[in-house]
Amino acid sequence: MMAEKPTIPDSEFQQRWQTLQQKMDEQNLDVVIAHGHEADPANVRYLSDYWPLFETGGVAVGREGDPALLIGPESLTFAQGRSRIAQIMQILQYRESAEPDYPGMELDTFGDVFDAVGGGNVKRIGIAGMSILPMTIYDAIVEAAGDAEVVKADDLLTDMRMVKSENELACMREAFRISEIATEKVLNEMKAGMTEQQVVGIAQGAMYAEGAEYEGHPTYVLSGDASTHAIGRPSPKVLREGEMIQLNIGALVSGYSSSVGRPVCIGSMPADMRELVEVGLEAHYKTMEFMKAGVPASEVVVKFEKFLEEKGYAQYLLYGPCHAIGLMEVERPWMESSSTYDLAENMTYQVDTFLYKEGQFGLRWEDGVIVTADGVETLSDKFLEVIEL
Amino acid sequence: MMAEKPTIPDSEFQQRWQTLQQKMDEQNLDVVIAHGHEADPANVRYLSDYWPLFETGGVAVGREGDPALLIGPESLTFAQGRSRIAQIMQILQYRESAEPDYPGMELDTFGDVFDAVGGGNVKRIGIAGMSILPMTIYDAIVEAAGDAEVVKADDLLTDMRMVKSENELACMREAFRISEIATEKVLNEMKAGMTEQQVVGIAQGAMYAEGAEYEGHPTYVLSGDASTHAIGRPSPKVLREGEMIQLNIGALVSGYSSSVGRPVCIGSMPADMRELVEVGLEAHYKTMEFMKAGVPASEVVVKFEKFLEEKGYAQYLLYGPCHAIGLMEVERPWMESSSTYDLAENMTYQVDTFLYKEGQFGLRWEDGVIVTADGVETLSDKFLEVIEL
Repeated sequence: MMAEKPTIPDSEFQQRWQTLQQKMDEQNLDVVIAHGHEADPANVRYLSDYWPLFETGGVAVGREGDPALLIGPESLTFAQGRSRIAQIMQILQYRESAEPDYPGMELDTFGDVFDAVGGGNVKRIGIAGMSILPMTIYDAIVEAAGDAEVVKADDLLTDMRMVKSENELACMREAFRISEIATEKVLNEMKAGMTEQQVVGIAQGAMYAEGAEYEGHPTYVLSGDASTHAIGRPSPKVLREGEMIQLNIGALVSGYSSSVGRPVCIGSMPADMRELVEVGLEAHYKTMEFMKAGVPASEVVVKFEKFLEEKGYAQYLLYGPCHAIGLMEVERPWMESSSTYDLAENMTYQVDTFLYKEGQFGLRWEDGVIVTADGVETLSDKFLEVIEL
Repeated sequence: MMAEKPTIPDSEFQQRWQTLQQKMDEQNLDVVIAHGHEADPANVRYLSDYWPLFETGGVAVGREGDPALLIGPESLTFAQGRSRIAQIMQILQYRESAEPDYPGMELDTFGDVFDAVGGGNVKRIGIAGMSILPMTIYDAIVEAAGDAEVVKADDLLTDMRMVKSENELACMREAFRISEIATEKVLNEMKAGMTEQQVVGIAQGAMYAEGAEYEGHPTYVLSGDASTHAIGRPSPKVLREGEMIQLNIGALVSGYSSSVGRPVCIGSMPADMRELVEVGLEAHYKTMEFMKAGVPASEVVVKFEKFLEEKGYAQYLLYGPCHAIGLMEVERPWMESSSTYDLAENMTYQVDTFLYKEGQFGLRWEDGVIVTADGVETLSDKFLEVIEL
């Protein structure tokens, strides 16, 4: 049997509801509805530990009292088994995207939700997750809202989620530990002649064997030209010696994500590939050097870009160098030259150094870090070297 | 090296665009925008073979000419590598849900899209995938639409997708073949003392080793109480002898999904469990008997429900007995008592027989079938028996 995985205690969920309610007071919001779906469950998991699939899910929080979990017609027994919120309401619009009718089934409406959590006096409704909220749910909310205003309220939860608690950090440390083990297994077993997709199987087998609850993101094994894909999907392409093979392997633990990114070559790297890999690694370390609590996020970006410019490699950059990580492998806030916030202790980032030569090869060094008073603590740091198998 | 997987030829994608354009003519639609995201990419994959992750994606089809693929700021090299549509447009609103700014990056707008595919004369815009289209994209479409009308247009693509071509059937046969192999491996290797999540690793390792490109849906290994979850997530719970273990294992091949569902017990099933499993299997076969081209979908449902009623098991039913399968494991159309269409040759369904005793155990027999003139052809049929390991 495996050691128990770290998780978030009930008391911390209750604290989250209370903190959100304080913020709702400040912003004069009577109800906040957070939305989540299979590929982006973060706000719903943050408030309820519930984690939708096939159907979508929501959490409705009023100014006082406990929230309500909002689910679709088929998820009741599942939700009862894992929700940290006692009150569960089933609403048609959270059904599967194929829009079944469920004839004869009795369901709640958003009107019922506003009554249940809003105390019958709802004037202003905030939506957390507007960039993933489907039209069908939005329409149902607006219809039930009547004269009440419906506004975007993503910032409330972003503020809460971006600084991690000790329990959250424990989940993330375990997720990164598993990702490093899976990476090691791939480095040991990957061979020329395998397909990219077969290597995915090695990584995922190792993650689940170590107690991952899911992948933190779709596993990347992108070789040759496909290594230039900042976002990509493994294919049936066969791995060959001397080409770039980009790995990004991330386990999920109690909802918290991780990802370890390493550029790898079977055999020796050609000189120009090795050079870009080495410059990338140098830039990767530089980003970590630039980071500490109190530093403006935009300053890290400006320094990183300046470093690559001085090296003569700015033209190989698509974006970067950091995005936050937590309940999503990519979450708010990003570090961009347009960012207007300062780093704070216990913010968690993916240092994500992606460089590519179009039509040739790309590489991504990627590691998790926790911002500290003095700099960063790394969540992953194995195999930070030119990897030639 | 592995045998090449079946796939959809370019000519079939072109045929799809033309068929959609005919339907747009009939419905007086100048542009159709199909939407897809990581957990529901079906319409976008159907029209382009592109398959978004992290970011979302769309396809814009005008009345004439080739469509445009719509992607976010980071997906260009990926999309160029796999889209069957030559014209690719990058639009801010297809960015990741964390909504980065991408300062300095030049992007297209929906106004550009309407110019590119709509020939400058767009009066009526249809949305395919309204139940997954985020508000942020809808708003951008409506803003660019000006006086043009924006309407739901899911039915056009549903009509096209529900009867499968020979190429589509070949992909599905291969996906089911892999799912049966993965199921067999799990039945051989699953042991009391393993966690549900570890068994997921066995299934996924086997799927990718056989050339799956991804999971067709999140793998189910749901044991004990959790087997009552019609929708569920594997947990760290340890498997025990004598309890229900529900498996649903589905591979994805060239975009086409599959799922094989089997209720399993390590050791002997208790009498009441065996009884429900046997009744479920009988009902499962009955559904297949009721199906053939020309039969009203609602008739299958009514007969299935009547069968369970006569057996005295109607109270253990949540829904069923069939939903379509194809580019999604669950897609339109469902078979419900409210359904108003007839079955036709080469429609593909999951026969999905889910019965549960609340708080005790549940079971799901699930197999794919192709509707034929005389009945059905099964896509999976192994291990259709009481399974005691």
